[in-house]
Amino acid sequence: MTADPSGMARPATLEDVARVAGVSRATVSRVVNGAHTVDPRLRSAVEQAVSQTGYVPNRAARSLVTRRADSVALVVSERERRAVHDPFIGRMFTDPYFGRVVSGLLEVLRPSGVQLMLMLADDAASRDQLVGYLRQGHADGVVLISSHSADPLPEMLTRARLPAVLAARPADPGPPIAHVDIDQHAGAGLAADRLAALGRTRIGTVSGPLDMPAGRDRLEGFRDALAAHGIHEVAAVEGDFTQAGGAAAMRRLLAERPDLDGLFVASDLMALGALPVLYRAGKRLPEDVAVVGFDDSSAALACDPPLTTVRQPVEEMAAEMARLLLRQIGEPGRTVPSVIFRAELVARQSA
Amino acid sequence: MTADPSGMARPATLEDVARVAGVSRATVSRVVNGAHTVDPRLRSAVEQAVSQTGYVPNRAARSLVTRRADSVALVVSERERRAVHDPFIGRMFTDPYFGRVVSGLLEVLRPSGVQLMLMLADDAASRDQLVGYLRQGHADGVVLISSHSADPLPEMLTRARLPAVLAARPADPGPPIAHVDIDQHAGAGLAADRLAALGRTRIGTVSGPLDMPAGRDRLEGFRDALAAHGIHEVAAVEGDFTQAGGAAAMRRLLAERPDLDGLFVASDLMALGALPVLYRAGKRLPEDVAVVGFDDSSAALACDPPLTTVRQPVEEMAAEMARLLLRQIGEPGRTVPSVIFRAELVARQSA
Repeated sequence: MTADPSGMARPATLEDVARVAGVSRATVSRVVNGAHTVDPRLRSAVEQAVSQTGYVPNRAARSLVTRRADSVALVVSERERRAVHDPFIGRMFTDPYFGRVVSGLLEVLRPSGVQLMLMLADDAASRDQLVGYLRQGHADGVVLISSHSADPLPEMLTRARLPAVLAARPADPGPPIAHVDIDQHAGAGLAADRLAALGRTRIGTVSGPLDMPAGRDRLEGFRDALAAHGIHEVAAVEGDFTQAGGAAAMRRLLAERPDLDGLFVASDLMALGALPVLYRAGKRLPEDVAVVGFDDSSAALACDPPLTTVRQPVEEMAAEMARLLLRQIGEPGRTVPSVIFRAELVARQSA
Repeated sequence: MTADPSGMARPATLEDVARVAGVSRATVSRVVNGAHTVDPRLRSAVEQAVSQTGYVPNRAARSLVTRRADSVALVVSERERRAVHDPFIGRMFTDPYFGRVVSGLLEVLRPSGVQLMLMLADDAASRDQLVGYLRQGHADGVVLISSHSADPLPEMLTRARLPAVLAARPADPGPPIAHVDIDQHAGAGLAADRLAALGRTRIGTVSGPLDMPAGRDRLEGFRDALAAHGIHEVAAVEGDFTQAGGAAAMRRLLAERPDLDGLFVASDLMALGALPVLYRAGKRLPEDVAVVGFDDSSAALACDPPLTTVRQPVEEMAAEMARLLLRQIGEPGRTVPSVIFRAELVARQSA
């Protein structure tokens, strides 16, 4: 709200934003409408001014012209649920990954006046219902988190001509949808380099699910880099990317390799579950076992000691997904590129 | 798109769908508009034809008839974020509560063919954007999770005449919106009864945030029931309903009351953070300290030993919210009642 000469509070206008940002009305309009050729400094000034003035783009008027809902759906697509209280939804709401994606998307969508909504699909009926809802124009595009290889949803979105971006590399070559990912293989290699540099040789790993590209790629990347350091024997146990699953996998790994001195856990959340198992077995960190995680999520800092981990810049990746999607929505038919980020090691106290 | 006699691609029409499906225009219209009395085989033929032709129903036209979007928004409303990466969104995606609410809502909404979407509001601009989006008819009603007393959103929804149900008792008397809650006071009393029955007398509690009704009510209910057992001294430390906050509060509580033998932690997630602190201080559970949690969420089973806790039937409560909301949507202007569930003790191994 802005003070009006009449003394009444009135909604902030495009002109108010332009004045506060010190740019032209046209520049504000281009930023707000998601144009991609705006100087980053100007964009940042406009985004700050939008936030400061509380400006809300006039969607109703705009919708009449653009036929847009000015909303984007973040769709989480999972395997069929086996029971009403199947843990899928619980899992989704206990993994910090989803919150980081939402944060990153909002950073780009909010200044553009685009509403974000989160929707779920986990069986044929819910996929049909979802695509029907989207086709009716309630959303202009989709960011899709799809974790299983045989998911028909990417194909359904393509056929419905809905602009879409995938939140990870697809498992198999699928329809032509852009994706944003990190180089998982190289990232996991950083964990191997760290353990090798610390002189650890009795190595174990709790991997992610091997039917997910992220799970497979991290295990292979870890093994390949260890081999380059002359370490060819690695005890590997498959986890499921949950905290409880990390604890269970750690118990199996310790039984198999009780003398391990170097450990790579393929997600920080699994590490949060694995650490208490190591403590109860009398291991000290990092003296007895050096531990490296993956993600650099809030779970890494919830570990005691704080976890050395491979950082996946999820918020930045999600912001990039939002930008790619807005570009597709703004220029229908345009092909946008996929973007691969680089992982980096964040050294803390566990290794 | 369909080939046009002129050779130009044009958007598919209702007539195209009818021709491809081999049914009447009226049947296509009824399927597309979600009528529930269509023969399943006809429905299937139409749906295939819609998919094949890429037909997008004219939502605006349909809204003129039914005025419904057949979707409901779960809105999570939080305090203003202080920074771009403020932990609110992270918090929301690490507390099993939200997943349980979504599960319960879907159980009722899916069979009704109503789409659920999750939306966030955490500052004035996002609230305005959200209400604007809802007013445009993209959702028929709102289930609102609002955790802070001064939240203007309930009032905004009432003024916009959007059907709404609150997911907990409002902090202060507010606009006339139905709510679903449990009897928090009596529920916390069950934890006190359990500790008293075990003969524990040196009692401490990690409470929830005292600016939330659930936090205040649980602390008062716990204290009142202990007093009825003749125990008037309770060491209380305020937590924030997160795992890390539970650990931090536990450290303060132990410093204040190192000899405690009975503990009530006002959420299972906080207990999951508190237990390792007790272990590192050399306490055994339940021998040295009997611990009772609250919620009976997945966090109670992630505790080691499994947590004795006060069960809040969140899924059932959410299903009830969905039913109340659908009733309001179906009969505009109708007043629906608030519903208060009863909590119960689930005895496991920690107390």
